[in-house]
Amino acid sequence: MAIKVAVAGASGYAGGEFLRLLLGHPAYVSGELELGTLSAGSNAGQTLGEHHPHLLPLADRVLAETDAQSLAGHDVVVLGLPHGHSSAIAEQLGPDVLVVDLGADFRLSSAEDWTGYYGSEHAGSWPYGLPELPAAREALRTTRRVAVPGCFPTGATLALFPAVAAKLIDASAITIVSVTGASGAGKSAKVPMLASEVMGSVKAYGVTTHRHTPEILQNLRSVTDEEVSLSFTPVLAPMARGILTTAVAPTTASAAELRAVYAEAFGDEPFVHVLPAGVQPMTASVLGSNAVQLGIEVDERAGRAVFTAAIDNLAKGTAGGAIQSMNLALGLPETDGLSTVGLAP
Amino acid sequence: MAIKVAVAGASGYAGGEFLRLLLGHPAYVSGELELGTLSAGSNAGQTLGEHHPHLLPLADRVLAETDAQSLAGHDVVVLGLPHGHSSAIAEQLGPDVLVVDLGADFRLSSAEDWTGYYGSEHAGSWPYGLPELPAAREALRTTRRVAVPGCFPTGATLALFPAVAAKLIDASAITIVSVTGASGAGKSAKVPMLASEVMGSVKAYGVTTHRHTPEILQNLRSVTDEEVSLSFTPVLAPMARGILTTAVAPTTASAAELRAVYAEAFGDEPFVHVLPAGVQPMTASVLGSNAVQLGIEVDERAGRAVFTAAIDNLAKGTAGGAIQSMNLALGLPETDGLSTVGLAP
Amino acid sequence: MAIKVAVAGASGYAGGEFLRLLLGHPAYVSGELELGTLSAGSNAGQTLGEHHPHLLPLADRVLAETDAQSLAGHDVVVLGLPHGHSSAIAEQLGPDVLVVDLGADFRLSSAEDWTGYYGSEHAGSWPYGLPELPAAREALRTTRRVAVPGCFPTGATLALFPAVAAKLIDASAITIVSVTGASGAGKSAKVPMLASEVMGSVKAYGVTTHRHTPEILQNLRSVTDEEVSLSFTPVLAPMARGILTTAVAPTTASAAELRAVYAEAFGDEPFVHVLPAGVQPMTASVLGSNAVQLGIEVDERAGRAVFTAAIDNLAKGTAGGAIQSMNLALGLPETDGLSTVGLAP
Amino acid sequence: MAIKVAVAGASGYAGGEFLRLLLGHPAYVSGELELGTLSAGSNAGQTLGEHHPHLLPLADRVLAETDAQSLAGHDVVVLGLPHGHSSAIAEQLGPDVLVVDLGADFRLSSAEDWTGYYGSEHAGSWPYGLPELPAAREALRTTRRVAVPGCFPTGATLALFPAVAAKLIDASAITIVSVTGASGAGKSAKVPMLASEVMGSVKAYGVTTHRHTPEILQNLRSVTDEEVSLSFTPVLAPMARGILTTAVAPTTASAAELRAVYAEAFGDEPFVHVLPAGVQPMTASVLGSNAVQLGIEVDERAGRAVFTAAIDNLAKGTAGGAIQSMNLALGLPETDGLSTVGLAP
Repeated sequence: MAIKVAVAGASGYAGGEFLRLLLGHPAYVSGELELGTLSAGSNAGQTLGEHHPHLLPLADRVLAETDAQSLAGHDVVVLGLPHGHSSAIAEQLGPDVLVVDLGADFRLSSAEDWTGYYGSEHAGSWPYGLPELPAAREALRTTRRVAVPGCFPTGATLALFPAVAAKLIDASAITIVSVTGASGAGKSAKVPMLASEVMGSVKAYGVTTHRHTPEILQNLRSVTDEEVSLSFTPVLAPMARGILTTAVAPTTASAAELRAVYAEAFGDEPFVHVLPAGVQPMTASVLGSNAVQLGIEVDERAGRAVFTAAIDNLAKGTAGGAIQSMNLALGLPETDGLSTVGLAP
Repeated sequence: MAIKVAVAGASGYAGGEFLRLLLGHPAYVSGELELGTLSAGSNAGQTLGEHHPHLLPLADRVLAETDAQSLAGHDVVVLGLPHGHSSAIAEQLGPDVLVVDLGADFRLSSAEDWTGYYGSEHAGSWPYGLPELPAAREALRTTRRVAVPGCFPTGATLALFPAVAAKLIDASAITIVSVTGASGAGKSAKVPMLASEVMGSVKAYGVTTHRHTPEILQNLRSVTDEEVSLSFTPVLAPMARGILTTAVAPTTASAAELRAVYAEAFGDEPFVHVLPAGVQPMTASVLGSNAVQLGIEVDERAGRAVFTAAIDNLAKGTAGGAIQSMNLALGLPETDGLSTVGLAP
Repeated sequence: MAIKVAVAGASGYAGGEFLRLLLGHPAYVSGELELGTLSAGSNAGQTLGEHHPHLLPLADRVLAETDAQSLAGHDVVVLGLPHGHSSAIAEQLGPDVLVVDLGADFRLSSAEDWTGYYGSEHAGSWPYGLPELPAAREALRTTRRVAVPGCFPTGATLALFPAVAAKLIDASAITIVSVTGASGAGKSAKVPMLASEVMGSVKAYGVTTHRHTPEILQNLRSVTDEEVSLSFTPVLAPMARGILTTAVAPTTASAAELRAVYAEAFGDEPFVHVLPAGVQPMTASVLGSNAVQLGIEVDERAGRAVFTAAIDNLAKGTAGGAIQSMNLALGLPETDGLSTVGLAP
Repeated sequence: MAIKVAVAGASGYAGGEFLRLLLGHPAYVSGELELGTLSAGSNAGQTLGEHHPHLLPLADRVLAETDAQSLAGHDVVVLGLPHGHSSAIAEQLGPDVLVVDLGADFRLSSAEDWTGYYGSEHAGSWPYGLPELPAAREALRTTRRVAVPGCFPTGATLALFPAVAAKLIDASAITIVSVTGASGAGKSAKVPMLASEVMGSVKAYGVTTHRHTPEILQNLRSVTDEEVSLSFTPVLAPMARGILTTAVAPTTASAAELRAVYAEAFGDEPFVHVLPAGVQPMTASVLGSNAVQLGIEVDERAGRAVFTAAIDNLAKGTAGGAIQSMNLALGLPETDGLSTVGLAP
């Protein structure tokens, strides 16, 4: 019998990207996975085609209200909701339902971090959907609850954790600047995200206060007992998708030493690819794909390691990561429905 | 009698921007400044209109060969040449001619730095065209030779030097990531700079090796006796103009202390504007203008100061800075022909 | 005594562009023009700097409510309001006040056209602010009311009217496709205008129904007694500013004949420039300027004339055209504060 | 035994896109299709990864010289060569080899048209790879030679041919304006295609002379005995991919009549989708896919039909169309390896 999947928040960017990937998933094509309810908030009652004209095969699907009733009776429920809305819904879904939360609600294990950055009450934490992180993959194989990582933490964590774990960089002095496309801001209408405001311009935002900061810290702290401290600055660039993370930290290691550690960490990973010395990743190379392309260089004059990581914020950074974790939790091949081939140019 | 200005490299982006600004300069409008030779390399013999259709009033000007003969007889010669070509030309221009070099040749005072980063023999150094830097303005008033700063050093230096001079940040641990538009790469045809390669994508380049690194170091070292060490990473974003610099360094100072120092450094500066706390600059705000918009924040959790600076790489970062220095050297009002109003949206 | 100017709708794109141009207007610089009230709708009470960070010299100006009281006591009132709001305000301003309406309310002389396309009651019509159109300039010199043309009509009319007036094209079979930047949609937050929706994509909109259609027809009919019929399709492209109009019509004339007619029509016009045969305008060439660059070609195989016109929709297409008309109405030099030099690249 | 495929011109955009699609083709995944030689011109000897970093699984493949020897021994040879180079290669490949030419050489059946637009000698014509065109699909099932359509003709033909065939529009008075992304210009380094030239700007090019004009005419003439005459103007927009074609022609038909004809023409077509009345296609909806989204409207005031078509110029417009024809010629399911789901936002 088919595994039935519901998507809440289907008219948003994250939900739409999950559906885009699902449409090409072999288990969906074969009928093993089946698409049930697609739901939305204020867009309920409209067709998916009005919101995602690129999802032609689903154009006539009507969006239901996002509530426990419409989401009942599914084996997998994917939540693409505004922060703070996942907990109430998840509680009403049975423990056997695989709930994949694209939002932030269950990412942080520290209630203090949550409240400090999000302001509301902590809902708890779920297994973290970054299989490449030590111990994460095994936990995902058996869970019925997945907290999909934030887009910035995905790139920053993969860029840094092997060096932190190997104590090859000074983790107490990390600086991260991540340049992102506009889709990370979601699909709600706001003047600063209008095309005329974003095109032809670049700006930093959330400086010193971005909510993904404690998530990156949590991930890096999970692999070391040393002090971890970092500055994180996101920068908005005029493109729809993609995150290019530049992470810099003091090091006395050579590039070769660092590369050896990354080769070990990612040698068997299907989606993480370390580029040759002197080659830098570009976000176009991973657009639409689940690939992560990494650059590793050492600035010997300054005594710094410079890591760069390119991901697609909506794919590996959100919906692709969700598919990867869902595959693990369902016992499907981890890479099914996911690609390492980007759409370029 | 009119002051006669020649522009070598007039068909390039830097030369074109100098001409764009000059066309609106009050001294040009009044006839006090007069445009003589416009010259080029391989484009000699063609009209300026073929290369800069936006410079309508000069569309029919024919480009001369760039050589000592075509540049002779001018009071001001602006050089927008590939690196390494300025010295030979400059030597043939008399000591009374004001030579404004938009290129790198005379920016670095250390021959070792020059050879280490540019590979060729050091041509020497000229007064540095960044009037906001301590002591620079006075030197510019009397010189006949100006080395216009690089675009990245302009933003990074203005973002950092007051804090370095006041010893409010740890200058031995600075990290700079600068996101730039494509015009910084100049107007020569290269596959990686094709529109299809750049649009919809972001990438770092010149990681650990960019030639503007020693120039930023030189500037910051000029204001302190403490150790200065920095990592500099440029990132290419899909826009034509603009640089957004993010500079991060350890600090124990408060934001208020830092703001006080910047207020003092820039309070009388016509082009440098520190934004209110919590407000970040965007490059669109300074497009086409000579303005520098700065953001200053302190991340108390991480113990870091985060400085952001928006400039137009072709304007304040090249040709606008050149006009500013030229004004000083010619005894004209420093702000003539320059604006603090950007073209947005 | 200074001429006092108020701008209603100052936080929008049209109002902002008017202010940008005014800041560089010689009469403003000299103090002959003075800026009084800046007003807004829902943004009243906030500073201009929050909405237009590129207008640094006016950053601290506080926005008043747009009403008769705040706009009283000015010699010039510029209205950048949503369609349908100008009439009520204008009625409360004295007949000696120069009212420059950036909106559509007073552009159409036919009440039937107005109601057919805008749905509301016709407010009347004012002298049309396109000085290049026959008879328009003289009317503008003496009026106290100016209806600034729409952005698409500005480009399309200038591209076509000389050929229509000379009966060199079949005006009953004109096809116009105009590719526009996003700022034409204004600064209100709407999902389809989000950066992620617009970047990397092109779409037509308002097909067969766009409100600028009757305005173009009215303009072309004003220069001929022959039948005029046209199809107009606007296309949204991923850029902030600029309109490239392509207008095609049957012709038996040669390119030389057409060029002769355009040379006569625009030979003395300061802002309209016909490019040489084989050269096509690009919108970047006119960004921020009041220039119109025109291309004229004849497709002899198909028996069609193909006219192309590049304008900046916010400058010559809105606020630049407004300044030009204001100059005429105030007896100032028509070109003051306006430029034919674009911001490129 | 596996079907062996070679790609000549693999480092270009068309070749790269063919490879991108092939990597996801079920017959490639299953091993039924196998990738042999990848060849290039001046890039021979380099790896594919240096030119297409998005094609991770093929990154280490070394590019051979494009010649008869390197292409020998394959069942399918895909040619992505500069115009005029396909004939000499094709002659050296046996008649049993399926040759799929992405270039223009064999598209036109009229030697006069070829020489008039391309200037060189006519090489002949091959079955035309647009299966949706009447009679084309059957011819493709048995051919060993395929001329893949040009990108503009793909969109324009599909937008127009049903109306032309049904004599519902005046085919002697068609006007086409097609807005395209930059990748259509290929991957060779040219100043006008630099990012700084293209971003933030729109321009028409090839006005009255574009080489795709006779191809569109040929296609439309193939479905009618009435006169066909058209004006075609391509416009370059700041995006990498996508073509939005607007085609306008006189009509006395109603929208409903037109829609009925298109429903019949495309009802069974897997890739062509007519949007509901009032809905316009956007190119983002078809990015990376083989889908064609069409809009049909009638302007009753002007008596014109307005057709709009969105395609991805590299996918359905080049490499996707090639896969579709290859599938037919190899007896594979026509839709294998192709999608109707675009990458948006």
